[in-house]
Amino acid sequence: MSQLSNQEVYDLIDSALEFKAGKKSVIGQNKFAINLFFENSTRTKSSFQVAEMKLGMNEIEFEAATSSTTKGESLYDTVKTEESIGASVAVIRHSQDKYYEDLVNNHDLKIHIINGGDGTGQHPSQSLLDLMTIYEHFGSFEGLKIGIIGDLSHSRVAHSNAEILTRLGAQMYFGGLDAWYTPEFAQMGPHMNVDDLCKEMDVVMLLRVQHERLSAEENKNFSKDDYFAKYGLNMDRVNLMKDDAMIMHPAPVNRGAEIGDDVVECCKSYIFPQMSNGVYMRMAMIEAVLEGDNSGNEITDKKRQAILR
Amino acid sequence: MSQLSNQEVYDLIDSALEFKAGKKSVIGQNKFAINLFFENSTRTKSSFQVAEMKLGMNEIEFEAATSSTTKGESLYDTVKTEESIGASVAVIRHSQDKYYEDLVNNHDLKIHIINGGDGTGQHPSQSLLDLMTIYEHFGSFEGLKIGIIGDLSHSRVAHSNAEILTRLGAQMYFGGLDAWYTPEFAQMGPHMNVDDLCKEMDVVMLLRVQHERLSAEENKNFSKDDYFAKYGLNMDRVNLMKDDAMIMHPAPVNRGAEIGDDVVECCKSYIFPQMSNGVYMRMAMIEAVLEGDNSGNEITDKKRQAILR
Amino acid sequence: MSQLSNQEVYDLIDSALEFKAGKKSVIGQNKFAINLFFENSTRTKSSFQVAEMKLGMNEIEFEAATSSTTKGESLYDTVKTEESIGASVAVIRHSQDKYYEDLVNNHDLKIHIINGGDGTGQHPSQSLLDLMTIYEHFGSFEGLKIGIIGDLSHSRVAHSNAEILTRLGAQMYFGGLDAWYTPEFAQMGPHMNVDDLCKEMDVVMLLRVQHERLSAEENKNFSKDDYFAKYGLNMDRVNLMKDDAMIMHPAPVNRGAEIGDDVVECCKSYIFPQMSNGVYMRMAMIEAVLEGDNSGNEITDKKRQAILR
Repeated sequence: MSQLSNQEVYDLIDSALEFKAGKKSVIGQNKFAINLFFENSTRTKSSFQVAEMKLGMNEIEFEAATSSTTKGESLYDTVKTEESIGASVAVIRHSQDKYYEDLVNNHDLKIHIINGGDGTGQHPSQSLLDLMTIYEHFGSFEGLKIGIIGDLSHSRVAHSNAEILTRLGAQMYFGGLDAWYTPEFAQMGPHMNVDDLCKEMDVVMLLRVQHERLSAEENKNFSKDDYFAKYGLNMDRVNLMKDDAMIMHPAPVNRGAEIGDDVVECCKSYIFPQMSNGVYMRMAMIEAVLEGDNSGNEITDKKRQAILR
Repeated sequence: MSQLSNQEVYDLIDSALEFKAGKKSVIGQNKFAINLFFENSTRTKSSFQVAEMKLGMNEIEFEAATSSTTKGESLYDTVKTEESIGASVAVIRHSQDKYYEDLVNNHDLKIHIINGGDGTGQHPSQSLLDLMTIYEHFGSFEGLKIGIIGDLSHSRVAHSNAEILTRLGAQMYFGGLDAWYTPEFAQMGPHMNVDDLCKEMDVVMLLRVQHERLSAEENKNFSKDDYFAKYGLNMDRVNLMKDDAMIMHPAPVNRGAEIGDDVVECCKSYIFPQMSNGVYMRMAMIEAVLEGDNSGNEITDKKRQAILR
Repeated sequence: MSQLSNQEVYDLIDSALEFKAGKKSVIGQNKFAINLFFENSTRTKSSFQVAEMKLGMNEIEFEAATSSTTKGESLYDTVKTEESIGASVAVIRHSQDKYYEDLVNNHDLKIHIINGGDGTGQHPSQSLLDLMTIYEHFGSFEGLKIGIIGDLSHSRVAHSNAEILTRLGAQMYFGGLDAWYTPEFAQMGPHMNVDDLCKEMDVVMLLRVQHERLSAEENKNFSKDDYFAKYGLNMDRVNLMKDDAMIMHPAPVNRGAEIGDDVVECCKSYIFPQMSNGVYMRMAMIEAVLEGDNSGNEITDKKRQAILR
C-alpha cells in the first residue's frame, strides 16, 4: 500500500465503482488465474474467484495441502510452474511476511503477483475495499475521523489502513488493549477509550481477535466477556455514534467478542457491503495488472505489479 | 420433503425428465453457485456441480477445511458472506440436523439454500431422484410395494422416502435388524424378512451400513459376512424378485455387506441410473429456486425455497 | 507407454506441437472432466486442468480427502459414479501400481481413463511431454545419447522413458547410486559417472530424490550435500556439457540436492519449458481419446483408451 500514490488509489476506487455500476470487461478472457492460498480463507478467496470469473478468466484449482509444496517445492518454483502452465495472475496468501519480495526482486516472473495477505503484514485488497467503502459513503477522506479498535499488532490491515488513510487526509485514532498500541501506531494518532471513540468517529473499524495468532498463554488468559465489556461494540455504544457514522470490520467476526451479535447487521454496519465491494475492487486490481500485458509497456506493467504488492 | 405437495413433487419429476430428454436452460447464466459441503461426498457434490454448470452457472470453490469456519466463523456468516460476494445458490451439506432452520427462520437471506443433506435428517435431492427413477420405470406410484432394507434409524433418506412414497400411494415395507425398525417406521408399514421382501416388492431400496454413524461398540460387533447372509442382497435373492422389479441404493455401496458385488450392476439394478438421474433432478431443483428471482414474486420464491429444505 | 507404437508417439507429438503453434479445438465443449488425484500434485493436476479448459471442457472438482472414498468407496465405484454423473474423461493419479488394470480389464467403462501416474509405475503424460521437448529441440531421436541420473528404482518416469527412447533410436546411459541401477536398466544401457555423462550426453535427465518413497532408514542416512557433490548437476558440470545439450527434470526439483540452484533456469535447462509443453501434450492426449467418441468407432476408441494407460 505504501507504494501506491494517492492518484493510483483513487484510480482503483473509480474503476471498482465503475464495475459496481455495471461496467463490463473481458480483459481476462481465455486467461488463467491461480489462487495460491497457504492460509485459510473464505472471503478473500471466494471474492478473488468471483472477480476473476467476472473478468472472463478461468481458474486453476489449488489446495496447498495436496500440492507439491508438501514435497518441499518452494513458493517460487510453484509460482514459476503455474506461469509455465499458462497462468497470467497468481493471487497469493502466505503466512510469511513479505513473501513477495523474493518473487519480485530476485526473479523475472511474467505472471502477475497479487498479494492476498502476507503473515501479519499487508492485505492490500482488503485495505483498498475498505477505502472504496468509505469513499462511496462520504465522497472524500479529507478530515474524516477514523478509529481502529482491536489487536493492532497482529493485524494485516490496521497498519496499512492507518498509513494510507492519514496520507489521504483522514485523522486516525486507536482503541483496545494498551499493549496493542505500539509506537508505530502512537505516531499516527492518539489512543482513546471505546466510548469516546464511538462518540467522535466517522468510521469505527473493528479488528477480530485473532486467536490463531496469539500465544497459548495469551489465549488462556483471554476472556471473551471481559473483552466485549471493555472494547466490544455493543448496541449502547452504537447509539453513541453519529447518525452517518460507519461500522466496518474485515471479518470473520467474533460475535460477542469484538462485536455484538445484534450489531453485525445493524443500520450503521457496512460489514457485508464491504464484502460486496471487495469483488469489484479485486476486479479493478486484476484489470490494472492485466492492462500492462496489453499495453506492451513493460515498465508500466512492472510498476503496476509492484504497486499491488 | 414433508412440505412439498404431491403436485410439486410431480412438477419437479416432470422438469427433471424434460432436462433428461434434452431441454436446455441457461437460467443460471452469469450466476454463481457455492457448494458448502461440511461432510464428505463424491456423488452429491459432483452431481450438483454438473447440474450448476449445465444451467450455465459458475461455481465458487469451497473446502471447509481451508475456509474461515476453521477460525470459528458461523454457518450463517459463511452463507451471508457468499451471498454478499454474489452467489445466488448455496448447496449445503452439514452434520447438524436441521441446520437450515436457523438460516431460513432467523435471517432474511436472498441466497437460495438447497439442502444437500443434514446430519441424520433429510436429503431431499436424493429422495427426489429416487422418486424420479421409480416414476420413470413404473409411470406411477399408486399401489407399488416398496421395501427399504437397512439401517433405517441412521438414514437420511429412509424416513423421508417412506413418508412421501406413502403419500404418493405406495405401500411401504421394511427389512433389516429389529433394532432399526423404530416406531416411526412401524406405523408406516410391516417388517418382513429379506427373502419375502424380495419375492413381493416392486422396488427394493437398500441402505448402506454407515460405519461412520455407528458407535465404536456397534462397529466392533459388526460382522460383514453375517450381515450379508441375513440382510444382504445376493444373486439368489435377486432371482426371487419379480421380472420388472427394481433394486435401488443411494450409494456409496458396501460391496459384500448390504449388496453382492455381482448385484451392483445386474439387470435389475438402477444404482448407477439413479446417479445419472440425480443431475437432472438437481437441475430441476435449482431452476425452481432461480425462477423465483425472475418472477419477482417474493412469496412464490420464499415458498419454493422453503420446500426445498 | 509400452503399448504405444512409434507412429502413435509421433502422432501425439505432432498434435501437441500443433496446439502449441495455435491450433484450436473445442472437442471438449459441453463435456466434463474429473481429475481424481489420490496423490499430491501441483504440475500434473494444474496442467491437465488447463488442457481440459483449453479444449472447452468443464471440470468437476475432486479432493480425495473429502470424497466418499473416505467411506470406503472403491476406485471403480468412484469412477463409475463420475461416468454416471456425466464425466467423459477421468485423469487418475493413484499410489497403487497399475490401478488401471482392474478398471480397463474387468469393467466396461465408457468414461476415458488417462493415467496421471500410478505408484512407482508409469506416468505417460510426463514421458510424452519429455519426448515432445526433446523432439522439438533435436528434430529426431535417432542416435541421441540420453542419460538419466537419479533414483531410477523409484521413478515413474525413468523406466518408461528409457524403454521408449531406446525404441525410438536413442542410446540410453544411467548415473547415480549403484543400488539404483537395477538389472532392468543394466540391459538398456551402461552406468557412468556424472562428469562423463555431462561430457557425452545430448540430454541429461535428472530425477528428484523422492524422500516420500524412501524408507525411514534410507532418509536418515541421506546427506543432501554428499548427494549433490557426487551426483548433483552443478554449474561446473553444466559447463562440461555440449553446446546444444539439454537439461531436463520432471520436477518438483530439490534445489541443492540433485540440481544446483543456479542450474534450474540456466540456458541449457528445459525444466520450465517442459511444463509449458505438458499442457499441449495433455491437450493432444485428451483430444485423442475424445475423438473416439465422435468417430463412433468403438474399437478405435478402446484402443486409444488402452494406449494411454
